[in-house]
Amino acid sequence: MSTIEKGRDVLTLINVFTVAPQKQQELVNVLIEASRATMRHLPGFVSANIHRSLDGKKVVNYAQWKSMADFEAMQKNPEAMPHMKAAAALAQFEPILCEVSDAIKVE
Amino acid sequence: MSTIEKGRDVLTLINVFTVAPQKQQELVNVLIEASRATMRHLPGFVSANIHRSLDGKKVVNYAQWKSMADFEAMQKNPEAMPHMKAAAALAQFEPILCEVSDAIKVE
Repeated sequence: MSTIEKGRDVLTLINVFTVAPQKQQELVNVLIEASRATMRHLPGFVSANIHRSLDGKKVVNYAQWKSMADFEAMQKNPEAMPHMKAAAALAQFEPILCEVSDAIKVE
Repeated sequence: MSTIEKGRDVLTLINVFTVAPQKQQELVNVLIEASRATMRHLPGFVSANIHRSLDGKKVVNYAQWKSMADFEAMQKNPEAMPHMKAAAALAQFEPILCEVSDAIKVE
């Protein structure tokens, strides 16, 4: 279980992948494998949450890192690169680096 | 604090807004107000998590509803409509309806 909180000192990466529906499950598998085998062991990793869109056309990774420095170090890490290339070969992607402005729950 | 979990019976709406940087904070405010004043009181609301991108160009609402029926009812709710129109007047948006394929946390 991952958590979203206002004011927590975490960098959120929302990466939106646009994919052909027949490749959606393959991309989901690549991102899960990347997160389990490699990302979770890197310094500053907090969580990766892989979502598939119901229309088959998108995959979204809602990921959390402790800091921008940790995220940037991951991008240069030789163990992470093959996973990122595998994902990039399957889909276009738009990474959005964010902070949480507010988290509103049901009362 | 909101939570992301695999296998939980929840509909996830990831709504990506593209906004002029000078209007980003206004859009964040509109979405927070909509969630606090109206959405959280509607049937099936679970959470809304408003994110601002660090480059100023995006706002992302990571929202959870108990079911597709609850989400669709919200879209037709006369109390919700003015909030959605206010957001649409400030930005373009791309709603992505999802389910969680996996949630990976640091060990």
